[in-house]
Amino acid sequence: MLTVVDCGARSRPLRSPHYPAARATVTERILHPGLAGKIMGAAQAAELIQPGMTVAMSGFTGAGYPKAVPQALAARMETASAAGHPFKIKVLTGASTAPELDGALARVEGMELRLPYQSDPAVRERINAGNLEYIDIHLSHVAQHTWFGFFGKIDVAVVEVSGIREDGSLIPSSSVGNNMTWLEQADKIILEVNRWQPEALAGMHDIYYGTALPPDRKPIPLLHPDDRIGQPWFRLDQDKVIAVVETNDPDRNSPFNPPDEASQRIAGHLLDFLGREVKRGRLTDKLLPLQSGVGNIANAVLAGLATGGYTGLSAYTEVIQDGMLQLIKEGVLRMASATSFSLSPAGIEEFNANVDFYSRRILLRPQEISNHPEVIRRLGCIAMNGMIEADIYGNVNSTHIAGSRIMNGIGGSGDFARNSYLSVFMAPSTAKGGKISGIVPMVSHVDHTEHDTMVVVTDQGLADLRGLAPKQRARVIIENCVHPDFKPMLQDYFDRACRDSYAKHTPHLLPEALSWHQRFIDTGSMLL
Amino acid sequence: MLTVVDCGARSRPLRSPHYPAARATVTERILHPGLAGKIMGAAQAAELIQPGMTVAMSGFTGAGYPKAVPQALAARMETASAAGHPFKIKVLTGASTAPELDGALARVEGMELRLPYQSDPAVRERINAGNLEYIDIHLSHVAQHTWFGFFGKIDVAVVEVSGIREDGSLIPSSSVGNNMTWLEQADKIILEVNRWQPEALAGMHDIYYGTALPPDRKPIPLLHPDDRIGQPWFRLDQDKVIAVVETNDPDRNSPFNPPDEASQRIAGHLLDFLGREVKRGRLTDKLLPLQSGVGNIANAVLAGLATGGYTGLSAYTEVIQDGMLQLIKEGVLRMASATSFSLSPAGIEEFNANVDFYSRRILLRPQEISNHPEVIRRLGCIAMNGMIEADIYGNVNSTHIAGSRIMNGIGGSGDFARNSYLSVFMAPSTAKGGKISGIVPMVSHVDHTEHDTMVVVTDQGLADLRGLAPKQRARVIIENCVHPDFKPMLQDYFDRACRDSYAKHTPHLLPEALSWHQRFIDTGSMLL
Repeated sequence: MLTVVDCGARSRPLRSPHYPAARATVTERILHPGLAGKIMGAAQAAELIQPGMTVAMSGFTGAGYPKAVPQALAARMETASAAGHPFKIKVLTGASTAPELDGALARVEGMELRLPYQSDPAVRERINAGNLEYIDIHLSHVAQHTWFGFFGKIDVAVVEVSGIREDGSLIPSSSVGNNMTWLEQADKIILEVNRWQPEALAGMHDIYYGTALPPDRKPIPLLHPDDRIGQPWFRLDQDKVIAVVETNDPDRNSPFNPPDEASQRIAGHLLDFLGREVKRGRLTDKLLPLQSGVGNIANAVLAGLATGGYTGLSAYTEVIQDGMLQLIKEGVLRMASATSFSLSPAGIEEFNANVDFYSRRILLRPQEISNHPEVIRRLGCIAMNGMIEADIYGNVNSTHIAGSRIMNGIGGSGDFARNSYLSVFMAPSTAKGGKISGIVPMVSHVDHTEHDTMVVVTDQGLADLRGLAPKQRARVIIENCVHPDFKPMLQDYFDRACRDSYAKHTPHLLPEALSWHQRFIDTGSMLL
Repeated sequence: MLTVVDCGARSRPLRSPHYPAARATVTERILHPGLAGKIMGAAQAAELIQPGMTVAMSGFTGAGYPKAVPQALAARMETASAAGHPFKIKVLTGASTAPELDGALARVEGMELRLPYQSDPAVRERINAGNLEYIDIHLSHVAQHTWFGFFGKIDVAVVEVSGIREDGSLIPSSSVGNNMTWLEQADKIILEVNRWQPEALAGMHDIYYGTALPPDRKPIPLLHPDDRIGQPWFRLDQDKVIAVVETNDPDRNSPFNPPDEASQRIAGHLLDFLGREVKRGRLTDKLLPLQSGVGNIANAVLAGLATGGYTGLSAYTEVIQDGMLQLIKEGVLRMASATSFSLSPAGIEEFNANVDFYSRRILLRPQEISNHPEVIRRLGCIAMNGMIEADIYGNVNSTHIAGSRIMNGIGGSGDFARNSYLSVFMAPSTAKGGKISGIVPMVSHVDHTEHDTMVVVTDQGLADLRGLAPKQRARVIIENCVHPDFKPMLQDYFDRACRDSYAKHTPHLLPEALSWHQRFIDTGSMLL
């Protein structure tokens, strides 16, 4: 085994002990003899990653992440660390992954930097303890900032695929994320070929190789969510492949929870609003391409569309959840474009049972295309994203508790909110058993500014902020969205701010503006 | 004269007493007989505007705004108001205008709503007194939100042009702004034909009529800043024209101030940085299309490019200032695309004296194209914008003093910052004679989030935030950008926040985070 103490390892060429000596033996999922010759165990592959490296991994919303090499790497890191040789790497992904990647590496303190979106409890704990640097970045920016060189050199890509074709091109897995960029930009590549992934994924992807660096960029020729603009396979520079690892492991596949009551109410308010927009003639009954965040509220909204009598809609979004499969089955959605699946075990079963049906109605794209401002603006999406809190002027916090504690990250919400036809943010009016208000005097962290928020929805009601100035927004948000336990407090704040504020465009009382959050820190509740 | 007390006036069809009876007499600038027949005085034209109307006016950065009708309207409002009949309208423009429009209407309390960008002292005073509602919106959003119907019906457009052609099409003026949208969307149109505007403006505009509403939008076929994608004239539905008013008045044409010392230092740091990026091979010596805000710092940066030996650059920006003319003359810029001029009297003289030269090197476009995310992202602009303050984590406040007092507005800074190759924000390290710091613990209003800021520059130095996590950003901003008078205070805040904050991803002490601003409110200084 290689040892891990050589700090000069990064500057040496990577070499696999098995490469390129072994004789090729193709398998059902690995049809290219040369790459079959690079098959090795995960532990052996993990030895090719050295301390300090920047490692770009596949994975988006718990789908399509490498399942074996990161765990083997974590074991190696633990051994090294026990021997007094801390072993950390920088990790880039598509978005969130799973315990086998983020969890495993975090638990052995194996990451010095992580980007972009994450949702793993062990990662979050380390970030908020100040032990892991985390860059929270718009998902559409990750690929281009890598091409621009803003994150430095990518030493190794570790990418899960569902198969290797005879010509060496790759069948993508259950998420595309940034994989095209990782495969193109990394010095060396480790492939995990996961036979658990449905064979039917082959052909569902649309990998666009038309991107370029400025000043040579061209328009992205995507005019409708169902347009195919690329090819179904990843190109591969076979010479960069230093290991191929076979796996047979499921994605994270979190169970699908039926929407709770608050989520159903939020969905109800939003669906009433969309219905009114259709009646006013602003939207047709085909709406516009839907973007939907993940989670309970998003699922409730999707369920509501089905009962609302809509048919033939489309989705241009990031993630296909169980709810979308259901809508496609029922004809409510005629198709969905995304960059990733995020299905429950039951959802996977449904997908596999009707794979011919779904594979003609779903497209998975690189995340710089699923989230591209150019495309989102052109399509005129209806963006529906969850939030942690909004303030009375429509600023939205999607990421932080009490100004300093990161939850997951901004993800693609900024890409969609800024560029969509309609930008909706949703949250329960209270959290933590009523101790926290979803609407506050001033948000403790701003992810979406007052300039980007059109509609705010809670279980209490909906505030349509379009065409309103700040104080007008405050009145409608307080009136429609705030829980009765917090409404008098918030009205009182606004009234006193309108009277006593330094200026009256966006009235605020600065010593009080963040006091609700501080009270939560001090007492566990925003209530007085 | 019509009286102004009829509150039902809005629902009646507009009618001019002179329309369509008068016989056509074409003039040098008004070649269309039918439209010449609608010539009338400004006072008469102003009578066609009724209380409560939404009036869309031309104007961008003090150029191309109507100069006669708004003043006549203000006189009418004053009379009505003195008679006990308040007369207010909603006013939409391209961006800032001038005393003859914003100033005149504000002084008679004639506006109930104003959008988007403004910079008039009388307007600002009323907004901050709470007497005028102001919607601060990304400049690229204004046109499409109008088309979407988010601002309601546009009753009247009042648009300055530099001429009317024989076929009734319009020669745009010294700014394009939202005029294409106003002319298409308004129920009725009042034209001001300003013979003061250089005849040579004819042909310099590129008016793109290829926009559509979703789901029918197509890619915008602009691949280089010099691409012509439209036509030089505005289309006009002549039946909508209710008045043509002749004027002969100069644009605002603020004098051009030579850059002060702080601006020159900021420019120096930025130019050093760009030079290093060229040396590292990230940029070629042609850089990428430049976007430059207006004002002292922007002018210093432009002047610095000239002395830096650059040639053959391009600009894809909003405004052509004197500095850009100079760069074009010297060959530093081969061309500039914008939506407006903003020249000093000397700049106008220079332009008129060499109009053939400049007219081949300058294009003026509608502001939804000059500021379009699709185009900015494709071109990969270098965005250089001023700010009021940044905080230690890279959040930027472009609009508010002490959280509640609006200055001008976000303008196009968000369109460019989010979508450019490089996003730079610049401010002096102190203001008000050293009493205010340009870098604070937490900005009092967020216009550009931590996710959108790549580079922060003050006269003290430059912080390159690309690829850095929040605490890493804080260290480089404090080290490089903060004035010595504030540096120990800010370092102390950050150190204590890192120790005592609720969580350590974005450490903050909430009771103190906005205390610098409150101290300024209380004492006139952020210093202890």
